[in-house]
Parts: sequence; structure tokens; C-alpha cells
Amino acid sequence: MFRSETEFVRWLQRRSPRRGARLGIGDDAALVGVARGHDLILTTDLSLEDIHFLRAVHPPRSVGHRALARSLSDIAAMGGTPRFALVSLAISKRTTRAWLQEFYAGLQALAKRFGVAVIGGDTAAVPERTAVDVVLTGEVRRGKALLRSGARPGDQIFVSGRLGLSALGLRLLSARRADLRRSPQSVEAVQAHLYPVPQCALGRYLSEKRLASALIDLSDGLSTDLGHLVEASGVGARVWESLIPAPEVSAPHLALGVSPLELALHGGEDYQLLFSVPPRKASLIPREFRGLPLHRIGEITRRKALLLVRANGQQEPLRPAGYDHFRNWTA
Amino acid sequence: MFRSETEFVRWLQRRSPRRGARLGIGDDAALVGVARGHDLILTTDLSLEDIHFLRAVHPPRSVGHRALARSLSDIAAMGGTPRFALVSLAISKRTTRAWLQEFYAGLQALAKRFGVAVIGGDTAAVPERTAVDVVLTGEVRRGKALLRSGARPGDQIFVSGRLGLSALGLRLLSARRADLRRSPQSVEAVQAHLYPVPQCALGRYLSEKRLASALIDLSDGLSTDLGHLVEASGVGARVWESLIPAPEVSAPHLALGVSPLELALHGGEDYQLLFSVPPRKASLIPREFRGLPLHRIGEITRRKALLLVRANGQQEPLRPAGYDHFRNWTA
Repeated sequence: MFRSETEFVRWLQRRSPRRGARLGIGDDAALVGVARGHDLILTTDLSLEDIHFLRAVHPPRSVGHRALARSLSDIAAMGGTPRFALVSLAISKRTTRAWLQEFYAGLQALAKRFGVAVIGGDTAAVPERTAVDVVLTGEVRRGKALLRSGARPGDQIFVSGRLGLSALGLRLLSARRADLRRSPQSVEAVQAHLYPVPQCALGRYLSEKRLASALIDLSDGLSTDLGHLVEASGVGARVWESLIPAPEVSAPHLALGVSPLELALHGGEDYQLLFSVPPRKASLIPREFRGLPLHRIGEITRRKALLLVRANGQQEPLRPAGYDHFRNWTA
Repeated sequence: MFRSETEFVRWLQRRSPRRGARLGIGDDAALVGVARGHDLILTTDLSLEDIHFLRAVHPPRSVGHRALARSLSDIAAMGGTPRFALVSLAISKRTTRAWLQEFYAGLQALAKRFGVAVIGGDTAAVPERTAVDVVLTGEVRRGKALLRSGARPGDQIFVSGRLGLSALGLRLLSARRADLRRSPQSVEAVQAHLYPVPQCALGRYLSEKRLASALIDLSDGLSTDLGHLVEASGVGARVWESLIPAPEVSAPHLALGVSPLELALHGGEDYQLLFSVPPRKASLIPREFRGLPLHRIGEITRRKALLLVRANGQQEPLRPAGYDHFRNWTA
């Protein structure tokens, strides 16, 4: 391991090109410019051992990738362009240098792909669980940010990609049965879980073309995140079971007891985008954006309720059942 | 405690006036403007239970105050003006609602005093130790930020305030002997430890008047932080024992085995400022800035070494002995 904090910070500096920042790692704070006519987007996301990642399931490269992906997805959900990251790391004393190297390789590879420079952070050594907090800035043209609060009754609801893949991938990884992971569907699901791709280009497209009235990313699960969007907008929503892009599963998956629809409704960490579109603009939404399918799944309603229309036409309440850190709080 | 994350976020929103931000807590990210002709300063600081604070020593109001003070001091150390904070909180399940209320009261009181709005963050529940990461932005006129790297041989070295007070306060609190804490010196030291005041106005003054060639805040201890400054500048330094503003101690303190000079040289968390000044400007540094004494303690040297000149005129190496998270790393 590193003998001193100074040695660790130097090691970080070598791995952190400051691409465009005025001042990167190594001073009291980082220094960046912000483009004229743009607003600054700020987001921060915790990645905690035994909560957001498990040593037995997630390779360190995936932990680094996912820690940054969560924040990139928040910038995507504002319609912005990501710029600079700061990484705070409370490192468990069980951590090896090899683990840290792989963690940074995963984080930096994703940063490079999205044009993000890691320019600062903080570090500490802790006795037990490693904790990561990624701070990310982004830019968006003034007045063009897409909020959760703009949905209006009659707007159409769209999602990108396929939902529930990440949750399926986690089930497959946790089952520890290599035989279940060989089908193409399994490989896709495991990849979606370990290396999710945030949809920044789609978010920017929706913002620049002024197509969406409201936008949120799918981090906690469709039922929970759609709940956030309608609550912020003061509206309700109705989605059709038959329109929800659930994962393709194969027979061995069903043996695990997974339901594709349940995964798509409540599984988190897909980092796809969920957005509402005014009726007169709905026809402008392409079926695909750069190879990523876009699916219309429902509509915004005046009545403040979340409803699921079953295949047989019956409506039932859709209860938010995605991840909530405070559920089952015992204190 | 809170029944859901949504309830907790609403509770936070009520306590977090967004003063000047375009969008505060409750969307995917926060949104702010940056003044024209200014650069953005970014800093993030961890405050971890059992490392940066102890439940038995630090009341929750102090934990909140100190968590933000660390970041405010980083902005001061760049010569900037603090603006917006995001607070990431991994809350131990042992935490009570009363503890959280006091934590936020301490953080928000300091934020208000420095004109800072808390506009976002992240939360999670963890089994054991509470962890806080405070992200803070600041602004500084383009090109006016004061870095660690500008010190030149012959520059004079100054510090603000009295050093070692915070370390003395921590000793007094940890000794758990109320009788030691009654003297005015003790009260001052305990206050300096629990509720340190970052020196943002002084940092801004040094930047705007172009008085300092390099600036750093004293968070890890004079010996360590002066080491950072000279290393970044590619120089060395010589400081005089007799010029260092050590804390006044009373007889009972000496019974604890504390040395005022050791506290001043190596005690951390004073959050005073350490800066170098070119010789022709040294006479422009006032003895006091808004009631805060400024002390000349030494000079920058070409030779890359840190030296302490003892009262008898003998020179000896000054070894960095402030806090280092990686020292005694065992893995």
C-alpha cells in the first residue's frame, strides 16, 4: 500500500489528466472555468461497500466505473454535458494497491470516454468498509436544463433502452452459478450491471431540441423514479404493461424465480432515461437514438396516481418498490 | 427516524434555503450560475466518525460545523468566496433524529454566516459509522486564485491567529476532566476545536490586494502544511521558534503533558492561513486583519529543506509531523 498520503496523491496525479481545468489535484481546491451563457450542474453520489457494491460480486474496475456512472447519469438527466469530477475515498485498510489501481482504471476509462477530467477529491483510511463519493460538474445552456417538474397531463411517457437488465445481471452474479451466465441474454445482463452506460448524448439531444417536458434517470427503478417525476410535476401517470421493455430471459433465468416485468418495473441501476413529451412533439421522438431504442410506455394524467394497465386492460395501482435507503430503518 | 428517503429529502429541503441557486435539493442535480469573469473553485472534504470526529467528544452541532468549516477553509486558501454546498451523508443506523437535527443546525448556521446555500447531496443508511462528505464551490476573479506553488526564495512567511489551539482543545475534551476546562485559556481552546472559524475574508483580502505569493490553510498542522507549500513551490523554508504564536497554557494544561510549541508546530485543524509575501510587500501586511493577528514566522529559502531556528539560535530540521491518513497503514 501507499506509505503516505503525499505518495498516494502523487500516484493519483499521474493517473489524472486535468483536461481543460485551470488547476487539478494537489492544491487546496480545484479551479475551472465555466463557459459563457451556461449554467453549472452539480451532483454527488455515494458508492458504499456492502450497500452499493459487494467485494464478492463487483470487480474493482466495475466499482470505479459504476461510481462515476451514477453521477454521469445525473448530468444526463439534466440534459447537460459532464465536465469535471472530484473523488472522495475512504479506503478500507483491507484494500490492496491492485484493487485501487483497478478501481481507478475503471473510473478513468469511463471519464475519458465522456470527456471528464478528475481534478480533485479527498482521501482517508478507514478500518472496515470502503466508501466513495463522486462529485461531478456539468454544463448546460442557460435555461435549457430539463427538470423533473415539467410534466403536464396528456404528455406521453418514454424510456430509453431495456429496463431491468441490471437487476437481472445482479441476480445472475449473486447466484454464483457460472452455468447460468453463458447465454447471450445473461452476458448482456451482467455487462449492463457491471458496466452501465449513462445516456448523456440522449439527455443533451432532448434538451437542445426542446423535446422533453420533464426528464429523470432510472437509478432506483421505474416505479420509484416515475413516482419522483410525477410528484415533482404535481401530476399522475398511467403506464401499459405491454409497452414496458422488459429484459429477454431464458429458461434458466426463470428457474431463479425472476419475473421480467417485475425486474423492469422495480429493478434499479439501469441508468436509462425516463422522459415526458408534450403530445404535439411525441411524433418527433425517433424509434432509435444512435442505436438506442426509445419506447413510449404511457401517459401523464391529471389525477395524482400511478397506474399500471395490465395486458387484460385492468388498471391497478403501481406502488414504488425500487430501492429506498431508509426503508426498514430500525433506530 | 425517517420512514423513507423521500421524507428525509423533504425534511432537508425545508432546512435548506437555496439562496441564489437556480435549482436546489430535489431534482437529479443542482443548478447554479457562475459570475462572469470568475473561475469556479471546487473542493470536497470527508468527515468520518472515529477519524475526524468522535461521538463521545464532539456534539452533533460541532460535527456539522466542522464538516463545512474544512471546506470553507479550502476556499479561503484559494482566496475565493464560498457559494454552494452539497452534503453526502452515509448515516449510521445508530443515529437519532435529534442528532441529525443538531448536525444540520450546526452546518446551516455556519453556511448562513458565510453566505453559502446547501443545494444538494446524497444519502444512504449504513450499519456502523456515519460518514459525511461536504462538496463546496467558490468563486474567484479569473487569474486571482492564490495557489500553493507561488513562493519564491526571500519571501516572508506569515500565519494568522494562534496555532495549536484546536489540538489543545481536543486534548482537554478527551481528558474528560471538567476541572481542566474552566480557565479562559481552556474555554478558548475548546471553542477553537469544536467551532473553528475559517478565514475566508483574509484569503479574499490577500488575493484582491495581490499581497501573497502562495497560500495554504492550516488543516494538518504547520509542519505538514508548510511542507506542502514549499514542495509545491520548489523551495525550502526557515521558521523561528520564538515567532510562532503558540497557545497560552495554564498550569493544569502542563499536567496533561502538552508542549505549547509542539501543539503549534504539529497540531492540526486550526484552519488559520499560512502565506508567503514577497519582501517588497511584507511591510504592507497589517499586524491585524479585522481583529485577527497576523504573525511573521520565517522566510522562504532556496535550499529545499524545512528548518526550525531554536531560541538559542541553533537550527534543526523541522519534520512534518501533522496528520497523515496513510501512516501506519497495515495492509
